Amino acid sequence: MSPTTETLTAERILEATEEVLRRHGPAKATVVDVARALGVSHGSVYRHFRTKAALREAVTKRWLDRTSQALSGIAAEEGRGPEARLRDWFQGLFDAKRRKAGHDPELFATYSVLTDENGEVVGEHIDDLTAQLTRIVEAGVAAGAFTAADPAATARALFHATGRFHDPCHAREWERPGVQDEFDAVLDLLLRGLRP
Amino acid sequence: MSPTTETLTAERILEATEEVLRRHGPAKATVVDVARALGVSHGSVYRHFRTKAALREAVTKRWLDRTSQALSGIAAEEGRGPEARLRDWFQGLFDAKRRKAGHDPELFATYSVLTDENGEVVGEHIDDLTAQLTRIVEAGVAAGAFTAADPAATARALFHATGRFHDPCHAREWERPGVQDEFDAVLDLLLRGLRP
Repeated sequence: MSPTTETLTAERILEATEEVLRRHGPAKATVVDVARALGVSHGSVYRHFRTKAALREAVTKRWLDRTSQALSGIAAEEGRGPEARLRDWFQGLFDAKRRKAGHDPELFATYSVLTDENGEVVGEHIDDLTAQLTRIVEAGVAAGAFTAADPAATARALFHATGRFHDPCHAREWERPGVQDEFDAVLDLLLRGLRP
Repeated sequence: MSPTTETLTAERILEATEEVLRRHGPAKATVVDVARALGVSHGSVYRHFRTKAALREAVTKRWLDRTSQALSGIAAEEGRGPEARLRDWFQGLFDAKRRKAGHDPELFATYSVLTDENGEVVGEHIDDLTAQLTRIVEAGVAAGAFTAADPAATARALFHATGRFHDPCHAREWERPGVQDEFDAVLDLLLRGLRP
């Protein structure tokens, strides 16, 4: 095995895949495209990702995981008030999505195509996020700050009611003036709905 | 003036325009296409709609107005409880959108292109709808059933928080099992947030 292939980790392949996607759009990013960009044989990429579908799925998951990992810290801040945690969590989600869409719109559009292709990965990502939210809702119920007969169902309702501020199909609206006020008004109403 | 052109009302032209759109997609529906479909001279269509843009704008407005007119009856039912009126209004909006998307998906896709072109008409439509909602919120405040410092702002927040159930970008989700439960959970939470 040559030194090049020894250091060829899955992470390095996924970084290169993102770069191929960024430069050439969603139609690209086959195993062969990525091997060429890395200057390695496609066999060495296949050792990590056996199909084009597996590679595209993994890079989509990596992109989505970056958001959920950034938010998991807020969900875990047990010491803070549940209302502040819930608001910060949604603000963090909105900011992360807005940054991705605004700073690199072409890559964002590319990932929109990939997420359409990988419904199962997106479903797992949303399950991750609503599990974090459920934890905040449960902490609020335990502290007597929130009422929720079924915290997981309430977490899903909160996620759906804030879709305007994280679902990629609303990305065009995120740069409009007043969108932060809209976010605040929706959060105010939802937090009122959670109070006992 | 021949009998044909005498009966050529704006409404007849818009009906024909919708039929042209249904058959040929959003790229069609110029004044000339519509005149041909009606078997009249394009001059007689121009008497009602001076440009292609004006014709496309008018047919978009007609499509959107059908929804707001259907809902205005619910908004005006002063005798009923505000919670029931609010829930029925949003259910009516969701059902109308779901019906349009499900029964004639090609025409729905065509109108999605037209609404993208006609941002101002869509803005007026949303103003119409939130004005109806404001009326329901104000009635709720007057009856002591709702709290809202600024009923118009609350109406906009309610509209934004329910986007999953009326914004065309979510149309793919409207046929999924469980979507009615999702709608109910969001409405429950929002109605709780409105209570004094």
